[in-house]
Amino acid sequence: MTDINLIEPRTLKGFRDYPPELMIPREWMQEQARRVYRGYGFAPIDTPALEYAEILLGKGGEESDKQIYRFMHHDHDIALRFDLTIPFARFAAQHISTLGTPFKRYHLGPVWRGENTSKGRYREFWQCDFDTIGTTSNAADIEVALVIHDLMRALKLERFVIHVNNRLVLNGLLEDLGLAGQTAAVLRCLDKLTKVSREDVQKEMAARAGVTSEQSNRLLDLVQTTGSNAEILDRLKREFGANAKAGEGVRRLEELLAATAKAGIPDGVISLDLSIARGLDYYTGTVYETFLSDLPRIGSVCSGGRYDNLAGLYTKQHLPGVGASLGLDRLLAALEELKLLQKIGTPAPVFIVQFSADRIGEYQGMARRLREQGIGVEVFPDAKKIGPQFQYAEKRGFKVALIAGPDDFAKGTWNIKDLAKREEKKAVADADVLSVVRGLLA
Amino acid sequence: MTDINLIEPRTLKGFRDYPPELMIPREWMQEQARRVYRGYGFAPIDTPALEYAEILLGKGGEESDKQIYRFMHHDHDIALRFDLTIPFARFAAQHISTLGTPFKRYHLGPVWRGENTSKGRYREFWQCDFDTIGTTSNAADIEVALVIHDLMRALKLERFVIHVNNRLVLNGLLEDLGLAGQTAAVLRCLDKLTKVSREDVQKEMAARAGVTSEQSNRLLDLVQTTGSNAEILDRLKREFGANAKAGEGVRRLEELLAATAKAGIPDGVISLDLSIARGLDYYTGTVYETFLSDLPRIGSVCSGGRYDNLAGLYTKQHLPGVGASLGLDRLLAALEELKLLQKIGTPAPVFIVQFSADRIGEYQGMARRLREQGIGVEVFPDAKKIGPQFQYAEKRGFKVALIAGPDDFAKGTWNIKDLAKREEKKAVADADVLSVVRGLLA
Repeated sequence: MTDINLIEPRTLKGFRDYPPELMIPREWMQEQARRVYRGYGFAPIDTPALEYAEILLGKGGEESDKQIYRFMHHDHDIALRFDLTIPFARFAAQHISTLGTPFKRYHLGPVWRGENTSKGRYREFWQCDFDTIGTTSNAADIEVALVIHDLMRALKLERFVIHVNNRLVLNGLLEDLGLAGQTAAVLRCLDKLTKVSREDVQKEMAARAGVTSEQSNRLLDLVQTTGSNAEILDRLKREFGANAKAGEGVRRLEELLAATAKAGIPDGVISLDLSIARGLDYYTGTVYETFLSDLPRIGSVCSGGRYDNLAGLYTKQHLPGVGASLGLDRLLAALEELKLLQKIGTPAPVFIVQFSADRIGEYQGMARRLREQGIGVEVFPDAKKIGPQFQYAEKRGFKVALIAGPDDFAKGTWNIKDLAKREEKKAVADADVLSVVRGLLA
Repeated sequence: MTDINLIEPRTLKGFRDYPPELMIPREWMQEQARRVYRGYGFAPIDTPALEYAEILLGKGGEESDKQIYRFMHHDHDIALRFDLTIPFARFAAQHISTLGTPFKRYHLGPVWRGENTSKGRYREFWQCDFDTIGTTSNAADIEVALVIHDLMRALKLERFVIHVNNRLVLNGLLEDLGLAGQTAAVLRCLDKLTKVSREDVQKEMAARAGVTSEQSNRLLDLVQTTGSNAEILDRLKREFGANAKAGEGVRRLEELLAATAKAGIPDGVISLDLSIARGLDYYTGTVYETFLSDLPRIGSVCSGGRYDNLAGLYTKQHLPGVGASLGLDRLLAALEELKLLQKIGTPAPVFIVQFSADRIGEYQGMARRLREQGIGVEVFPDAKKIGPQFQYAEKRGFKVALIAGPDDFAKGTWNIKDLAKREEKKAVADADVLSVVRGLLA
């Protein structure tokens, strides 16, 4: 017999809960991103999840409008943000006169898109954006590459390549090919080069922008140039040195490569890739995509670029800028699917067995001494038999257990057990507990 | 002439942006809460902002239903969560068989309530909850008091008092007064004692629950008992020792006071307060409210209690628990209103002047050396005159500036300036920069 009064506990389709074994690595990733961004002087901001619909609509094209969670509330037409860029544009228009430029901000937060769900794609996910606005200086573009590098390292993703390009190079190229008027359409086709075949890209370019096969062959030959950064730069200078736009793009890329090398980024981490276009129309300069060498099929995990004007829809103030966004939840979902996440059920490494219910003050007293030294300690809440308490400790993933009963309190000792190595417990004087625990956790 | 094509950049009424000077302390507070919760073995979880409306409706009473942001989306009746407790109940019903008990979780996240806005109250605000479920042990209740204590200390709120009571004591009392049937109504009136006069509370008790003035006088005399914890306990034992419920409540409170003292909580921090009832019907045992001695009028900043069954609406599994919630954004708004927040515009303490545009690699190289040691460094993006760069640095609140021009690079030196003390800059050899900067920041 089922109880018909119970409400079925379930989440909406496309949404999911984060239990500890997912949320512990997710929080860790968020913290790494914050630490890296702060290290460069990016300051945090937050904006509301809900905005007036007019702020959000029509900014990402028709497709994106359809995905927006939009509704009426007390006669107000409102919607949930679908990215952090549009809210930042609105924020900048509203506050930049107070904040002043250059303004460097990071923003971590959930966004909502009612898109078709597939593996690893959810309708609610966190983005981690950083941008510098109010400057056209290449120093800011160079910094974005440094931040992405440090971010990947902080996330322990050692094998990655940051692909960089400059839209000026592509624009100059298209100008030379007589395709200046079709730039947006051509680049949108080009952006699909990693997903579909060269032939399909050419067909689409012909259909959408009237690009001849001669034009598309020349374009694709060039953007598919392989070789070292220096070789690609040489070819560009040779073939497009005369084009002012392309020349400026090449100069900025060259400067970026030299400065990042000087600042200590190892060879091979930053790679010139003329095929990177980024589909979004608003990029106008440097563009970035970041691929994990061991997980290429998940696509770019950190992408961005330079734009001419962030907030033109809301203010007359011209706000050029450059930034990128870490696709944190997509990265997490990929690592999860590949079983690359460590399954940890507790953020505290030390477990105190509750041997005697009347010694809670002593157990919590020891726990507090360790916590003051930055060591997390959980005291089991029930004075159950020791077996079930150890089973719980093992399931959660604690590393060290402390046990003390009446005899130990009389002697002033604690028994310490290495749960990871399943070693026998050993008695330690009260005063030595901290150093022994530290040793076991080191 | 105004440009009619511009969209006015504005937030919804009752919502607000968090610029760096608000977001820096807000993130710091969130981090303190996470650190303290983790230190006790509470593990993080997250749940979607959106839930099926049936999950959320009817859980907080009619008033709360009216405040819910609810809408139809592709024929689904959905809503934004208005607290973190109901989603936790749904989460627990869904996952507890996998997670096992006891289960200790913390959850930080925004919630949405379309309530009337007033100073310091917004329609979107973060809550920071922690709970232990799956145990009725008083050890978990004791721990809640310890967590609240450590949380307040971590937030640098040194002067605070945690008021504790036990609903069993109040229930026993009402039983003795012949008011057992009207418990919920009477306690809801009692909960207003800090906001309205004793006389008004008595009037309301009479009107809502038919309480005679003799009954309400006896009740209010008792709950308004002043004196030390020991004196209040003595009076309770003397007057209500015979009542089984009250006796059990007193026993648990006595144990909590003894264990927290033993664990090292200073005298006076935890205060027995029989007038604390917590309006919510589902509390059944220990209840907690936390008041700041210097800001009493903002009310309790961290409140909670023990409940018999968390998820009874969604599952037959009985899940007793205890926990509390930090009203983070309300606390932040209060500190802001009282001008107690330090105005900092950058999370990085060190500023590198961009003296020569062609030395970006060197500037970022030095910055990276310092960042590796955990010191945040911003490099100014434009090679402007030094005056405007220092104005920017001062406005943002950097503490130390590094300057190097061609001569310095030739000599291998950097000029260091203490921005806080506005001291003259001094030249330092490249190898000594780290230690000098560390000294200035210490």
